[in-house]
Parts: sequence; C-alpha cells; structure tokens
Amino acid sequence: MTRNPFRYFGAALAATTVLVVGSGVAMAEEAVPFDTQVRFIFNTLNFLLMGFLVMWMAAGFAMLEAGLVRSKNVSMQLTKNVALYSIAGIMFWLIGYNLMYTGVGDGYFGTPMPVSIPDPAAEAKGLSAEGATMYAAASDWFFQMVFCATTASIVSGTLAERIKLWPFLLFTVVLTGVIYPIVGSWEWGGGWLDKEYGFSDFAGSTLVHSTGGWAALAGALVLGPRLGKYGKDGSVHPIPGSNMALATLGTFILWLGWFGFNGGSQLAMDSAENVSAIARIFVNTNAAAAAGAVTALILTQLVYRKVDITMVLNGALAGLVSITAEPLAPSLPWAVFVGAIGGVIVMVVVPLLDKLKIDDVVGAIPVHLIAGIWGTMIVPASNSGASFLGQFVGVVAVGVFVFTVSLVIWFILKATIGIRVSEEEEIMGLDAAEIGVEAYPEFGKGSQAI
Amino acid sequence: MTRNPFRYFGAALAATTVLVVGSGVAMAEEAVPFDTQVRFIFNTLNFLLMGFLVMWMAAGFAMLEAGLVRSKNVSMQLTKNVALYSIAGIMFWLIGYNLMYTGVGDGYFGTPMPVSIPDPAAEAKGLSAEGATMYAAASDWFFQMVFCATTASIVSGTLAERIKLWPFLLFTVVLTGVIYPIVGSWEWGGGWLDKEYGFSDFAGSTLVHSTGGWAALAGALVLGPRLGKYGKDGSVHPIPGSNMALATLGTFILWLGWFGFNGGSQLAMDSAENVSAIARIFVNTNAAAAAGAVTALILTQLVYRKVDITMVLNGALAGLVSITAEPLAPSLPWAVFVGAIGGVIVMVVVPLLDKLKIDDVVGAIPVHLIAGIWGTMIVPASNSGASFLGQFVGVVAVGVFVFTVSLVIWFILKATIGIRVSEEEEIMGLDAAEIGVEAYPEFGKGSQAI
Amino acid sequence: MTRNPFRYFGAALAATTVLVVGSGVAMAEEAVPFDTQVRFIFNTLNFLLMGFLVMWMAAGFAMLEAGLVRSKNVSMQLTKNVALYSIAGIMFWLIGYNLMYTGVGDGYFGTPMPVSIPDPAAEAKGLSAEGATMYAAASDWFFQMVFCATTASIVSGTLAERIKLWPFLLFTVVLTGVIYPIVGSWEWGGGWLDKEYGFSDFAGSTLVHSTGGWAALAGALVLGPRLGKYGKDGSVHPIPGSNMALATLGTFILWLGWFGFNGGSQLAMDSAENVSAIARIFVNTNAAAAAGAVTALILTQLVYRKVDITMVLNGALAGLVSITAEPLAPSLPWAVFVGAIGGVIVMVVVPLLDKLKIDDVVGAIPVHLIAGIWGTMIVPASNSGASFLGQFVGVVAVGVFVFTVSLVIWFILKATIGIRVSEEEEIMGLDAAEIGVEAYPEFGKGSQAI
Repeated sequence: MTRNPFRYFGAALAATTVLVVGSGVAMAEEAVPFDTQVRFIFNTLNFLLMGFLVMWMAAGFAMLEAGLVRSKNVSMQLTKNVALYSIAGIMFWLIGYNLMYTGVGDGYFGTPMPVSIPDPAAEAKGLSAEGATMYAAASDWFFQMVFCATTASIVSGTLAERIKLWPFLLFTVVLTGVIYPIVGSWEWGGGWLDKEYGFSDFAGSTLVHSTGGWAALAGALVLGPRLGKYGKDGSVHPIPGSNMALATLGTFILWLGWFGFNGGSQLAMDSAENVSAIARIFVNTNAAAAAGAVTALILTQLVYRKVDITMVLNGALAGLVSITAEPLAPSLPWAVFVGAIGGVIVMVVVPLLDKLKIDDVVGAIPVHLIAGIWGTMIVPASNSGASFLGQFVGVVAVGVFVFTVSLVIWFILKATIGIRVSEEEEIMGLDAAEIGVEAYPEFGKGSQAI
Repeated sequence: MTRNPFRYFGAALAATTVLVVGSGVAMAEEAVPFDTQVRFIFNTLNFLLMGFLVMWMAAGFAMLEAGLVRSKNVSMQLTKNVALYSIAGIMFWLIGYNLMYTGVGDGYFGTPMPVSIPDPAAEAKGLSAEGATMYAAASDWFFQMVFCATTASIVSGTLAERIKLWPFLLFTVVLTGVIYPIVGSWEWGGGWLDKEYGFSDFAGSTLVHSTGGWAALAGALVLGPRLGKYGKDGSVHPIPGSNMALATLGTFILWLGWFGFNGGSQLAMDSAENVSAIARIFVNTNAAAAAGAVTALILTQLVYRKVDITMVLNGALAGLVSITAEPLAPSLPWAVFVGAIGGVIVMVVVPLLDKLKIDDVVGAIPVHLIAGIWGTMIVPASNSGASFLGQFVGVVAVGVFVFTVSLVIWFILKATIGIRVSEEEEIMGLDAAEIGVEAYPEFGKGSQAI
Repeated sequence: MTRNPFRYFGAALAATTVLVVGSGVAMAEEAVPFDTQVRFIFNTLNFLLMGFLVMWMAAGFAMLEAGLVRSKNVSMQLTKNVALYSIAGIMFWLIGYNLMYTGVGDGYFGTPMPVSIPDPAAEAKGLSAEGATMYAAASDWFFQMVFCATTASIVSGTLAERIKLWPFLLFTVVLTGVIYPIVGSWEWGGGWLDKEYGFSDFAGSTLVHSTGGWAALAGALVLGPRLGKYGKDGSVHPIPGSNMALATLGTFILWLGWFGFNGGSQLAMDSAENVSAIARIFVNTNAAAAAGAVTALILTQLVYRKVDITMVLNGALAGLVSITAEPLAPSLPWAVFVGAIGGVIVMVVVPLLDKLKIDDVVGAIPVHLIAGIWGTMIVPASNSGASFLGQFVGVVAVGVFVFTVSLVIWFILKATIGIRVSEEEEIMGLDAAEIGVEAYPEFGKGSQAI
C-alpha cells in the first residue's frame, strides 16, 4: 500500500454520515454518529498514551534496580526486568485479564481464559449498538497489562543479588497470571471488596504497589539477607549500589510514567470533566512526588548530616505511591502532605527493616508496601466516598492473601528447585553464575564489591 | 470502584445532550455543547502531552550534567537535579504561577499567592459561561511549571563540581519562585514588555534559556573556576566528563522534550490551524537541532582535526535554543540556518569563556544564554510582528534584571552560609563531602580524576 | 505575546462557525466544518505523537550500540548516532521525501527536490477544498523522516569498532537521501511494487529494517571483521560489550518507540475503526516482542546452560521486527508465534554469521535483515490481501537493489577516502583515534579491552 493514501472529500460529510478511512480505502459508513466516534477515539487514546507511559516504567524499574545493585549482579537484574515484563504480557493475555475482569460478579475471581482482540471494523460498527463499550478493547487490555507488569517489577528489586533467575521467573508467572488478577478482581473487577466494602483505590496503591510489596516481603523472608549484610553482632553493613546515575534515571522514568499510571486511571478522556480530572491528577501526582523528595532531602540532612541520594529518590517514589490511591480528590496542599509523609516513611522504615534483618535491596518494601498502605488508609480524608473501615478491610485482605499465597509459593520453590544461589555463586556474582555476561567487563572493580 | 466501568448508550446522544462519564457513574449534563468539550479536551491534552515531554527534560539535564562532570561529583549533580525539579514544582505552586500570570496588567509582576486547582465537575460546567477558559487550569499550571523547572536546570550545570548543595537549592527557591516568574510576567503574563514593546519570544529563548543562562553566569563569576582548570600562566586544562553515554542520552532526551517545549507553546490544539502550527514547529525544531549538530560536527573536524562529541551535543542543544524564540514562522531552510548559527556559537563561545576564565562546566552559557540571545534577536527576520528594537529591549531588560538580582543573591549567599566547598572537599569530590554516596563506587578511578 | 491568551466565548459557537484560536488572536472562520477539523487534528496528532516515539528510537539505537561496543569505541558510536539522525533530518528534507512520495506514479522513484512546509492558516483554510489532505503536511513529513533515520541507525551498529567516522557519514547521506527513499517509493510511494505486485509491508519489516540490514551486510563484507574476532584456526573470540545497562535501556527505548513505529503506520486516527486498529497494533507489537524475548531466554538456557542477556535483548528486537510487516491482521496468538520465531532466528543466525566470519557487532543482521525477511514473508498467512509471490518479489527486489548499490558505494568509499581505521587506531580505540574524547576516562579498563 502507499503510505500517504487518504484524501478526504469535505463535501461528502454530513452529520450522520461518516467516512471511515482505513487501510488507504475510503468507504462510506452510515451507522455510527461522529460524536460517538470522537469519544471512542479520546478514550482509546487515553489508554494508549497513558499505557505507553506505564510501559516505560518497566525501563524505570530496570534502571533503578541496576543502579542499586553491585556491578557483579547487574546483568542478572536487567535480565529479570526484561523477562518479567515479557512474562506479564503473556500471562495477562493467557489467563490474567479475564481472571480479573470477566465474570467476577461480586465474587472472588473471574474466568481464567485467554483474551481475544476484536476486529477493528467490527468493533467500530458495534458502537451503534446499545451498551457498547466506549473504548477499544485492545487499548484497555494494554493499559491493564502494564499495571500487571508493574506489580512484578516491584518484587524484582527486593530480592536482588541472591535469588536464582528461574524460580524468580516462575514466581512471576504465578504473580502476573494469578495473584495480581485475583486481588484486582476484588476491586477493579467489581468483586466483593468493591461491592461490599466500597474499597477505594484509584490507581493501585494497594492493588498494585502493596501487592508487589507483600510478595516481595514474603520472598525476602524465605530467601534471607545477602551474605555480609548483617553481622552476627547485630551490625548492619551498607552495600552501596554500583551506579547512582542509573538509579536517578530510573526514578525520573518512573516519575514520568506515573502521570500515565494515575492519569490514565481516570479511564476516560471523552468529556471536559474527564480531561480536567486527568489534569488535576497530573498536578497532584507531581506535587506528591516533589514533596516526598524534598522531605527525604531535608530529613537526611538533619538526621545524617549529609544528603543521601538513594533516600531522596525513594522519597520521590514513596510520594508517588502514596498519592496513587487517590490522586484526584485531594487539593494541592493535601497532595503535598500525603507525599511528604511518603518521604517520612522511607526515612523510618528503611532502618527499621535493617533492624529486623529483612534485606530489601532497593527499598521496595517501604516505598511500595508501607507507603501504599499509608496512601490507601488516608483516602477517606479527601474522598468522602471512601470509609476508613472499607480501606482497612481492603488493605488487610490484600495483605493476608498476597502474603500468604506468596509465602507458600516461595516455600514450594525453595523446597523443590531452590531459590537461592550458592555462597560461592553469590560471592562471585550472579552475572558470572547464571547469566554468563558481565554488565561492565572493562570497568575496574573497587573495594566495595564484597 | 470497578476499573472498566463505563458503557455508553449511543441512543441517548443528541446534539446538545452530553453524557459525562466520570468516576464510573454516567450522568446527564445538559449545558455544554459537545463541540466545546472537544476543543477543551484537545487544548488540555496539548498541555498534558507536551508538558510531560518537557518534564522529561529534567531527566535530560540530569543525565547530560552527570555525564559531563567527573565521577566524584556525579551523585551531587544528580541530587541537585532531582531536588531542583521538586523545588520548582513547589515554589511555582506557592507563589510563582500567580506572580507570573495573575493581575500583572501591563506591569512588572503579578500576585504572589498559591494556586488552587479547580474541581473538574465545576470546571466542566463552567464551560457554558461566557469567556470560559478553553483548557483545564491544572493542565496549564503543569505546562508552565515544567518551564520554570527548566530554567533552574540550566543553572545547575554551569556551577557543577564546586558549589555546595544547600546554597544552590536556596538560589533555586528564589529563581523558581521569584526571578523567573517576574521576568515571565513581563511578557507571557502580559506585562510591560508585551504591551509596550511587542517583544516576541514564542517558547522562551530569552524568558527561559537566557534567564537560566544569566543566573548561571552570575553564579560562575561569584563562585570562580574549579581548582586546576586555569593555570596561572593562562593555560587552560580541559577536565573531561566522566560518561559520554549519559551526556548523549541527556541530549537525546532534551531533543525529544523540546518538541513539547516548542510545540506545546502554541498553547492550543483545538483547530486545524493550531495543530498544523504544532506540526510545523516540530519540523523546524528538529531541523534547527540537526543543523546545530552537523555544524559543530564539521567545524570541530576542521578546527581541531577531530570531532569533539561534547561540541556536537552542545551544537544540537544550541540549535534547539536558537529556534525556541520563533519555531513557527520560519521556513524550513531558515530554521536550518538559525540552528546552524547556534552550532557556530558553541564553537566560538566555549573557548572564549575559557579565555575569560569563566568556568562553565557543561557549556550552558553558550548554549542557553548566547544562543538564546541569537534566537531572540533574529525573530524579526521571519516574524514581521516582531521588531529588532522590541527584541533588543527584551533581551537587555531580562539580562540586566536577572544578572543583577542573581549576582546580589549569590553574594548574599556567599557572605552568609558560603557557596563553595573547601579545597579539600573539592579535591575529594562533592559526593564524599556532601552526599555520602559515591555514584560509581566500584569503577576504578583513572588519572583524569584530578 | 501573553502566554495564557485565549478565552473562548461559548455563545459564539454555531454548527458551521469555527473560532480559530491561534497566536493569541481569536478570529472568525466560516468555511471548514468543525467535524472536518477534528479529524484533521486526530490524524495530525497521530503523526506527531507516534512520530516522537519513533524519534526516541534514535536514542534507543545509540544506547544499545554504546552498550554493545567496547568502552574505547563508545564516544565514536554515540557520535555516529547523533550525526546520522541529524543527517537523515536534513537529507530527507533536501531530496528524500519528494524522491519517495512525489510523482512516483507506478514507477521507480519520485522527484528529488526539497520539501516546503505549508503555512498553517493556509493549510487549515484549504481543508474546505475537495480532495484536501486530512492531516498536516508537516506532521506527515516528520513521521516519515524518523523512519528514514531508523534505517540509518541499523547500519551503524554492525560496522562498529573499525569504521572511520566520515565515510560512514557519507554513506548515511546516500542511504537517507537516495537509497531508502527509492526503495520506499516502490511501495509506500505507490510505485511498481505496490501497483504490480501488491507487496504488503505495513510498517517496514522490509522497507526499513531489511534495507538497513542489507546496507549493513554490504558494509560488513567490504570492511571485514574486527581484529582478533576470528582466529586463523577458525576459532571465534567473543568481544563482550562494555555496558549491559545501556544495552538494556536501549532495548526498552526501542520497544517503547515501536508502538509509535507500528501504531502510527495506521496513518490515521480519525475514526473509531482507525483508533481501534492502532490499539490492536499496540497489543500485537507488544506480544511479538515479549514472545521473542522469552523464546531467546529459554533457548539460551537450554543451549548454553546460561541465559545470555544480549540474546534476550536481540530476541525482543527480532520479535518487534518480525511483526512490523503486519501488526494489524494477526490474532494475538499469531503475533506471539511470529515474534517467537524472531527469537529463534537470533539464536540461529548469530552463530551462523560467525561461521561465515561476518562480524556484526550488535546483531543487526539477524535482528533487522533476517527477521525482517521472515516477518515480510509470513504476512499472507494472516492478511489475505497479500500473496507469497508479491512478498517474495518485494523481499528480493529490495535486497538486490540495496545490497548492490550499497556494495558499490562502500567500494567507492574504500577506494577513495578509505573506510577502515589503521590497525594501530583500531587497537587504541576509535575514540582516541577520531573523536578525541574518551567515553569513560575515569573507569579502569579491564582485561577484555583487546
């Protein structure tokens, strides 16, 4: 086909006649009013545009984690991130999406079956039917899939530097195909949590971030800390990440992607009100991130007398997670407050985990789990449609389910194929042990490379 | 709430009846015609879409600067960039936006008070009122805020490798909360420069880039050059940046973001003419950048017998800054010319600054200040609505104001808390001195790390 | 001008009256119906939005290639990528676009003359004419230009680490100004391949990716392998890339950009059917990439007992190239299959090239050439409008033309200015030899730096 194919004859346009230009051939279509098509286009565009921003977050997690592990484990971390995004894309097609969204009723899960993408011509024609969905089904699938992938990204960082590749990927298969979709069905699929408790989680502080956080916490407990992280005398040995530039790049990518994450969760852009809501969400999302970063900046200066860049980055991310449960209702000052508490959480929980000897390599548990709980619980303060009881039930239900199921799966994996590399392999680095490609073969290894 | 909530009943649509679908509940709205809403959506989408591209430029500056400083100062440079973007977001909310845009009249500044973001339902309903703004207020705020942040990013690079963190951040507070908004109010706020001189600066060659450049120049003069940069015998010692891959990545990010910077500055996308203008701006912006890069490529080969990649990157950026004052009016060949001169400016001004012993670590002064002046002064050649006198008055007024005020603030900061680290700290590196986290703890330090 | 200039008087709106708001001045326009303008806006937005995603792929190639070469050649590789994108932008303006699209008829090429970008007001007014184009000409040019640049990016990687800068750039001038436009004219310009053979290549598996691949193959043959790559005893010495984090970042950028590459190639977004098609393309594109990555992941584990991250990255890219010839027609399972075979191709062809002693530094020949052929040949399996004969003719015609012409040009360049650096320079590294700026001056060089 030629590539500048279509020319439009203006005179042919009438109010109820629509020229559908596709594949280079103009054909008359009588049924669907142009206004209806315009709304369909806006809503679909919302999912595609915001969806590609969320897809980009996969790169953000990859860079953040690659920057926060030692260079001997960087190729492994990168491989895990490319693989988990790919696996999420396949599992959410094979069973995840329909398990989450189809036939849930007011129940506990939907129907695990593959998604099929409609034919565009048929979908467009169907718009004239009553009750037609006002967005392309494929765009909705794409948008929901990248959320599923985000959940898996969160787990990856916590377990870095000692987990084997394949058990991690098997867990990812279960997480993206089953665990996340089931939890999601309770609320976004219209299940019991939505129907009976009016749980409110706009873009997923609990459903996405805490779910990832609980799965990561279960894994960290079963896996144990890295060699040398905690001394027998109770001492904590910091293990610096190898590349702050990558960690910062990853944070900026996540910040950018979060506009899609929260903004796209308005789910519609076909009216002035909807697009105004998206704009408000952008502003609140940015404000919470900025507040989280500045809070961590000031607190590290006050507490440690030096600014810790990893805390600042995690402060921004905790601000983002905190506002995710309700980025629309808050006023701007309230968004700043919600995000600032996210920054405080990072400052408090990072050392707390170390006291508990829970080794969370990138800080995903404070950022995604604890800030996710905070964000969810504070929703009723700005959104009168939510209740503290409903929020509490949601947080606990998701926590108990995800943590328990994850724990069981991690134990099964540990008992069967094993989840942790040998001591020798851990010292040598996972890249040499499992990947066979060093990330930085030419850059000298400094003394920090324990 | 469920997450695939809305279904649309086509039959219910009539010309003056609009189904507003928000928060999962469809409700009938009678007042606002669909056409009006469509234009509101397009204009708002323009601000959000182009705005997130400009937001992404914050990452571009961070990577560019991290690549052009020595590894011992990389964490500091990254911290400054995350912090300044966060601070801009807060200051432009607290006082900046209204200082720039509200109640300026034909005067010298507006009203420094916090912005409040309207409720989406109310904003949508207000569209039926006469004189309603045809975009979401939040989207406009977001778009203007990322411009404010860009201004601060420019300063960061010039002063790298010897400035203390907190005085830099305090300066950023003043720059983003007061200096930039005041200068902006003169023109984009409709103040005296706009009303009396017809100054024309489409997307901010002067208002953003030269403002950042003047503030950086004042800082560089007060701060002095890095240790070892200029010998007592007049010799100049190049101090190579630590990571050309990051510098190149940063440049590509900025190039991408600039489509939003210039394209979004059309400020509307609700008509064929407006979107055609945006498309033309994309093409001219790209042409100027390409011309700046190729010019620097050829000139470095001719002058130095080798191609200097940092010059090529800065050539592209100077091309972008040059076209920013007027990316719409020029024909494509004229855009190429304007950008090519940007490349020449980099070649001429970089060594000139070294002769003057002004130590500009990343080349921000040639790229943003001098190319910004060039771009602004050449506007009348393509845009008959602008005059050389008006442009000259604008360039000088902004220069005198920003340079003087910045100089005063830098001196105050120097006299009080001090702005420069000690000699020992500068040799040790700012990361060890102020951040406490090395950027690349495992990568061997070569002989260049003075 | 002020920067929040336009206010809209709702009462003034009538069905056939359009307020065109541009440059801050509202003026009444009578001719063009609003519906027509809306479609013009959507189609133009499609080109701009998808176009900037494809532009971003230039950064993806730069990062991928910078990560896969040794550190002594990184600045060179980065310089080449910035330069080739700039050159493509200039050549596609000067002659390429019109050579490809204007006056091709059913022939072999169009008219090599510069493009001129229309005035927005005139273009908008022209919409009321019969046969008006329903998108901004500038947006179309921008979208097509970034495809041209992609073709040149492909060549860059294969020839890395031993080619001189300037002959590479001269080849790029010919490739982007002449070779790619001629091949493109045959099909997308409506020439003989389109008219006589019904060749079908939706987004360019052959026209873009194989074209780049053939040019790269010709160059690799003329240039010869890197020193030390192939032993005289037939042994193959792997030369590891210097930075897997950059290679992974590059892959994620390309994956993201590919949504624009394939989705934008629908060429229109002005109807429900068109946007639904774009959504379906997004899903298929993602599925093919995921399948390619997972296939390579599993195969490297089975064959090499370790996962090779470079193979996983190239598997994802080969999946993307494979689906590019037909991302719309396939069902989701078929897209997975097409992409998975892409992953297999990488596994088979990479060692095969080594047996043939063809040194393809980044794997561009398997990824872009061979997977491009596979994707093109399999189109008729899902798209009944294409024939195996037509596809075969297209693949062979493009291959013969591009390979032959490229070979001739590479030989001419070799015979005149020379295309390969000296042995000393190759050992020293191209950065020292030709660029004069090391990419990582402070990072120790390990033993791999042959």
